[in-house]
Amino acid sequence: MKALVTGGAGFIGSHLVDRLLERGEKVVCVDNFLLGKKEYLSDALGNNNFQLREFDLLDLETLDCLFREQNFDIVYHLAANSDIQQGYEDINVDYKNTFLSTYNILCCMKKNNVKEIAFASSSAIYGNHTDILKEDSGPLMPISNYGAAKLASEAYISSFCECYNINAWIIRFPNVIGWRLTHGVIFDFINKLLDDPNQLLILGNGKQTKPYLYISDLLDAFDIIIKQNDSKVQLYNVSSDSLSDVNFIANTVINLLNLKNVKISYTGGNVGWIGDVEKFFYDTSKIKKLGWSSTHTSDEAIKLSVKKEIAFRHL
Amino acid sequence: MKALVTGGAGFIGSHLVDRLLERGEKVVCVDNFLLGKKEYLSDALGNNNFQLREFDLLDLETLDCLFREQNFDIVYHLAANSDIQQGYEDINVDYKNTFLSTYNILCCMKKNNVKEIAFASSSAIYGNHTDILKEDSGPLMPISNYGAAKLASEAYISSFCECYNINAWIIRFPNVIGWRLTHGVIFDFINKLLDDPNQLLILGNGKQTKPYLYISDLLDAFDIIIKQNDSKVQLYNVSSDSLSDVNFIANTVINLLNLKNVKISYTGGNVGWIGDVEKFFYDTSKIKKLGWSSTHTSDEAIKLSVKKEIAFRHL
Repeated sequence: MKALVTGGAGFIGSHLVDRLLERGEKVVCVDNFLLGKKEYLSDALGNNNFQLREFDLLDLETLDCLFREQNFDIVYHLAANSDIQQGYEDINVDYKNTFLSTYNILCCMKKNNVKEIAFASSSAIYGNHTDILKEDSGPLMPISNYGAAKLASEAYISSFCECYNINAWIIRFPNVIGWRLTHGVIFDFINKLLDDPNQLLILGNGKQTKPYLYISDLLDAFDIIIKQNDSKVQLYNVSSDSLSDVNFIANTVINLLNLKNVKISYTGGNVGWIGDVEKFFYDTSKIKKLGWSSTHTSDEAIKLSVKKEIAFRHL
Repeated sequence: MKALVTGGAGFIGSHLVDRLLERGEKVVCVDNFLLGKKEYLSDALGNNNFQLREFDLLDLETLDCLFREQNFDIVYHLAANSDIQQGYEDINVDYKNTFLSTYNILCCMKKNNVKEIAFASSSAIYGNHTDILKEDSGPLMPISNYGAAKLASEAYISSFCECYNINAWIIRFPNVIGWRLTHGVIFDFINKLLDDPNQLLILGNGKQTKPYLYISDLLDAFDIIIKQNDSKVQLYNVSSDSLSDVNFIANTVINLLNLKNVKISYTGGNVGWIGDVEKFFYDTSKIKKLGWSSTHTSDEAIKLSVKKEIAFRHL
């Protein structure tokens, strides 16, 4: 098996690269290093089955050359803007780095006869729903450009599957955490507290409540999902069945950094930023039927991730 | 009220332009005349409240100039590729003419503070569902690049509404018919029979069954829908509650063209082309609550459209 992992130097991408190499697969990683870091690939870089290519997926000519030169069996397409707030300020970030990168990948797959893609989608495609989110929940009304670009990507993956005989596994992630973070609430809290250990400003009221999934649980889900082949497009929500709130994350980070007397303040409001949701919860019955369930609760995943990230950064 | 109508020289666009002018609104039409025709605007062109601008929505600079120069109250965004089969052959047609045109419109609306958009969406965003289609049906898995580009457009309209305080009315059309056609099964059958009145090749088995809506019924629905303002994004399926099959359309066209002994043949298969669906049916209870219902059955709409199109073309 030879896999292309886009965004392979990012948080989830670098862990996926390690997992694929561990089982002896050949892996080519493409990353533009906007968010990814070469140090996240330190294990991979010593492996003969690994190649790293540094370029942007918007460079269609170079991407097409890569497809022509390699015979990929599958594409794991993880490259995307992951900074939702930045996508609000600059509308082109998600359009280019999330949607257009997907479109370019699909065009190269069609042209070069690559027939399998696993895609990192997101709960953000649903927008603001109060119900438990199932794979067939609708309407899909994203409230961030990030969510819009992920849904636009899903739409094109779906049509390419039907039109050009491709198989896709679309996995709608919740908040995935672990170490080698590049973004997200744990990453932000650690950085803020390193800047100023005396105070922490929390976006919103701290009560936003979501499921957090540990990286190894996500990779286990990937392994199981991409074995499914009963339809051209396989769609799965993946999540732990428990929730954590932002205050819990803040206190976990403060405690594990051994900080005392941190003054916590809040920007206020039910959500952290425009495009954030107050709460969401996935129905995971579909993936559970495949025998998978999260081995860590959401709170456990947070504690473990903060510990691992602190250790990884030698803090 | 000053409205921008994109694709205003097309089939639905030109009828909408006429309707808006009839009630005294100011209308600027943008069309690239890829599918639209100037003759469809012959009534509008004599009206002082009407302006026609011929350029492509991909020309962002010219579009932005237009937005700066005019103070639009609302955009009716109808411009799109409507040839689903062409979008299968050339993947960039829908990406550019349907999705990217929407994205450019949204960027100009944000920049120039235009706060209302009515968008022509489509049943194609649903893909292959066997159930009755409701506004909240999911998952949304389009099977044509046309459907993918419409769903990608919906996704971005939704996020722009939330992020930049815009109001949208997304109307998911069935097959809309009438005169001044630019595409579709009636258009194709008339053209084929003008080419060769002795035979008609039908794509598929002729049993594809869908709701057809007469143009004036659609415009009546538009009028009612854009008065709704209880949420940022208003989403409506619009359709008659009856269905017609392709064989009925073929026989109607043959009869109304006064042709005899036409040899009908079929390409075979359940669908006419890749991306076509065998059957679909809308749940229209949401729009019915607003007091609208179709005044023509699907079969009536077909007979009336064929008659009007034949008269319009002086056949």
